[in-house]
Amino acid sequence: MPQHPAADAPKATAATGTDAVTSDAATHAREVLVEERRSIDNIDAALVHLLAERFSHTQRVGVLKATHGLPPADPSREREQIDRLRSLADDAGLDPVFAEAFMRFIVTEVIRHHERIRDEGSADS
Amino acid sequence: MPQHPAADAPKATAATGTDAVTSDAATHAREVLVEERRSIDNIDAALVHLLAERFSHTQRVGVLKATHGLPPADPSREREQIDRLRSLADDAGLDPVFAEAFMRFIVTEVIRHHERIRDEGSADS
Repeated sequence: MPQHPAADAPKATAATGTDAVTSDAATHAREVLVEERRSIDNIDAALVHLLAERFSHTQRVGVLKATHGLPPADPSREREQIDRLRSLADDAGLDPVFAEAFMRFIVTEVIRHHERIRDEGSADS
Repeated sequence: MPQHPAADAPKATAATGTDAVTSDAATHAREVLVEERRSIDNIDAALVHLLAERFSHTQRVGVLKATHGLPPADPSREREQIDRLRSLADDAGLDPVFAEAFMRFIVTEVIRHHERIRDEGSADS
């Protein structure tokens, strides 16, 4: 399909040519979008599995804390985690502000779990 | 160190024995905690790198959407992503409610990026 129809070509042909270019670009864009979304879906599956693994570790930490009467939250550890992640994010090209928000989002959930473990423990005793 | 001191042992010795048991348990707990936190830190580094990779894909999607005049948000795609992640989370032993909240947290940030790309694009034109 000609991308640059001759100047003397009938108007209808020129219009069809333009539409075809637009349509080709749109088809290509759709293909790229499908491909990108496939990668994003793969990454999301990996994220979910890593998060599941992370929570199995924090679950053990929660039991340990409850057993030894340690508080569910540990602000100095959290500060260290956030500082480290901001630095890792910076190196990896991820917005450190987002990395910090992400870490706080996860840690809030973890503390909720730890509190639940502690409260279930005291309900049992 | 005796865990069950003889009934006729002097009180001081019995107390020392108990302290030693407590201290051994506390030392072990601290060791386990350090080990668990090392694993958590490794997982967090992996999460940050995956998130950086995810945002490099969504950045390309944002440019594609802006170029083709597609809206930054896509509710039907988001619904599909959330349903899929809830199911993956369920299989992986991760709370599906948390998986959904996590996905919404990420997607909110992505839409913000897409809007920024679109607005920067129209500012240029």
